[in-house]
Amino acid sequence: MRVEIINTGSELLIGQVVNTHGAYFGQQLLELGLQPVRQTSIPDGDIIASTLRESITRGVDVLLVTGGLGPTPDDLTRELCAEMLGLQLEFDDSIMAAITARFAKFNRVPGENNRRQAMVPQGALVLENPNGTAPGLYFPPGLAEDSPAIFLLPGPPRELQPMFETCVLPRLREIIAQHGHIIPVCRNYWFFGIGESDLSAKVDAAIAKIPHLEVGYCLKNAGVIVRLTGPESAVALADAPLRACFPENLVSTDGETMEEIIVQLLTEKRQTVATAESCTGGFIAHHFTNVSGSSAIFGHGFVTYANEAKIRHLDVDPDTLQTHGAVSVPTVLQMAEGALQASGADHAIAVTGIAGPTGGSDEKPVGTVFIGLASRGQPAIAHKYVFQTDRITFKIRTVQTALDLLRRRLLDIPSG
Amino acid sequence: MRVEIINTGSELLIGQVVNTHGAYFGQQLLELGLQPVRQTSIPDGDIIASTLRESITRGVDVLLVTGGLGPTPDDLTRELCAEMLGLQLEFDDSIMAAITARFAKFNRVPGENNRRQAMVPQGALVLENPNGTAPGLYFPPGLAEDSPAIFLLPGPPRELQPMFETCVLPRLREIIAQHGHIIPVCRNYWFFGIGESDLSAKVDAAIAKIPHLEVGYCLKNAGVIVRLTGPESAVALADAPLRACFPENLVSTDGETMEEIIVQLLTEKRQTVATAESCTGGFIAHHFTNVSGSSAIFGHGFVTYANEAKIRHLDVDPDTLQTHGAVSVPTVLQMAEGALQASGADHAIAVTGIAGPTGGSDEKPVGTVFIGLASRGQPAIAHKYVFQTDRITFKIRTVQTALDLLRRRLLDIPSG
Repeated sequence: MRVEIINTGSELLIGQVVNTHGAYFGQQLLELGLQPVRQTSIPDGDIIASTLRESITRGVDVLLVTGGLGPTPDDLTRELCAEMLGLQLEFDDSIMAAITARFAKFNRVPGENNRRQAMVPQGALVLENPNGTAPGLYFPPGLAEDSPAIFLLPGPPRELQPMFETCVLPRLREIIAQHGHIIPVCRNYWFFGIGESDLSAKVDAAIAKIPHLEVGYCLKNAGVIVRLTGPESAVALADAPLRACFPENLVSTDGETMEEIIVQLLTEKRQTVATAESCTGGFIAHHFTNVSGSSAIFGHGFVTYANEAKIRHLDVDPDTLQTHGAVSVPTVLQMAEGALQASGADHAIAVTGIAGPTGGSDEKPVGTVFIGLASRGQPAIAHKYVFQTDRITFKIRTVQTALDLLRRRLLDIPSG
Repeated sequence: MRVEIINTGSELLIGQVVNTHGAYFGQQLLELGLQPVRQTSIPDGDIIASTLRESITRGVDVLLVTGGLGPTPDDLTRELCAEMLGLQLEFDDSIMAAITARFAKFNRVPGENNRRQAMVPQGALVLENPNGTAPGLYFPPGLAEDSPAIFLLPGPPRELQPMFETCVLPRLREIIAQHGHIIPVCRNYWFFGIGESDLSAKVDAAIAKIPHLEVGYCLKNAGVIVRLTGPESAVALADAPLRACFPENLVSTDGETMEEIIVQLLTEKRQTVATAESCTGGFIAHHFTNVSGSSAIFGHGFVTYANEAKIRHLDVDPDTLQTHGAVSVPTVLQMAEGALQASGADHAIAVTGIAGPTGGSDEKPVGTVFIGLASRGQPAIAHKYVFQTDRITFKIRTVQTALDLLRRRLLDIPSG
């Protein structure tokens, strides 16, 4: 089955945004056993029509088109696709009602230009967009002579991705079934704290000989995903040996994030965590509070970027800061203990480090970070790491490493 | 001048890596006044030849091709491009010597397959690769009949980007000069707090009649970017009327983020800010601390997710929480005042709301959020918003709205 992707939007070609659609579709389609044969980015405007035509001429079965469904004059995908297929556009009252309702939520009224978004080509099906004004459209195969299945989807990922999962995937499964294809099983194992080469050396040795099993690696959140694809029996056969490779490093097998796992573990154990952050500046707290239900396990976070904040809110000893510096084992231990006391939580994570690009020294270069963990009734621990990278990647690696430290401690505690 | 980009590599199509080449080239080319007319990703293999031919048939002037220059059997770009142009390949001793020297650095010896990397099509120029074994190749325009300028570049960004800047940019400047082109200007205006439809209606009316001016819209960080492209005179002519459309909503004109602008403003005024976050859970603090140099203006942040944390760290009155609830004007005002006192900062931003998906009521549905701002010597203010969306988008919109509130206040303060 031939799938092509067409991404429209001048912003993709002038470097204003990184095109993440290709990677997103690639991952989603892989789970259906499909690999796109081509992805094309083109500017807004008339070029869309000839690009669609080229794809159809190459003989695609499915065409995924993003962007150009908005209300502005450069949004022409709907009109150009209908015209190319020779389909009339019809005004759809229910779409207009949905757009009007959406605007009303923000105390606004749709403009004349929004009416274009309520136009539907004859025979096309509307894909609802609960996250924006632009509905998607589905042209079933054969709607015009020899036309393939065409999906027109909104450009913003937060609108596109829910629509893809709700409206496009089920239709793709139908199309695959109609082609008589079997969808392989795909399973992702997320390992943290082990390098890709070490991981792949051991994993390949353990499962390489299983027939019809495809093994892929990709980086995610400072860890590595091992992706197994193949018939259900092959994937099942690989499961135990793969888990046995680095059992302590295996974080999740179903796409769960570190913070989701920690929220689950703490909820099960009826325990809570507090945070004391210097260099990560609230990013750990942000991770916890991204998880719905986290209020049961997280109540207090301290962003103590200044030394004075560490002293005032976490009771860090000014002499410790003076003698050892803010980026040190004694400071991070006192931060963790201080957060535990100030919050009344069962656990407290603390981080202090040098995110850069300035502030490093010979002894403590940019990228140096100390992570501390205090738990009620246990001695606090601290580890030193050096993550020499850009500022945001430094923060990501520090957060994931700190969360992993807590995750491992929680795995050792019996459920309460 | 028509530039096309072709990215080869199956990993780009199965979602293993995000294709950052498009954004990188786009940014680089924009500085030369060039906008790629198309970017295509294709798998490794024979498809490269027909894709190159299609681009040439469309009449490109410059073709940037990435990937497929490595030593493995699926790396075929060099051979297929030479064959398509009818050029013989010749073994180049100096390339082989460079490859051998590079291997020697890692105590290794090149294999037979590396010899392919030393083959050069007749008339093509070698682009040195100090960061990998694969040299790039440049086919000057007209090397074969009607052939455009073709650059073959290695796939890994850390090899490609230095090669592009050292070897490709100077040649592109020459080609542009030979074409006698006038370089267009591109300028981005980021508006916040005004919808895309309202913005475009007013903006289009204000500047649509300026000749040769191209106006584009795209969403960014819960705001809208208006992108002007065209001759310098046209962009200059549009500047004043565009700024006059929604002057208070215009945040930046050179790609700066809200937090960067606030860090600049506070630094200029020698003032500081503190944060008191409930539903955003540290995300505002994270934004500030993403900016290098933010330690001068941000020292204290409180993540008071639990009511008890609001009482203990921000001195919120338990009666207020009891009477008005945690998500209310009185609570957010007390949070802001409390953060101001506890931190000693000049300004404090506070937020409290219902991120969802649960926790809403008829009176305060999911998405309800109160944002408060306290400043030394001024009465605290609070506003109510309703952002009905997913949890993470809710957080993004709340953070940007809170930052914008502070930005507007700072614009009213004379520099200190």
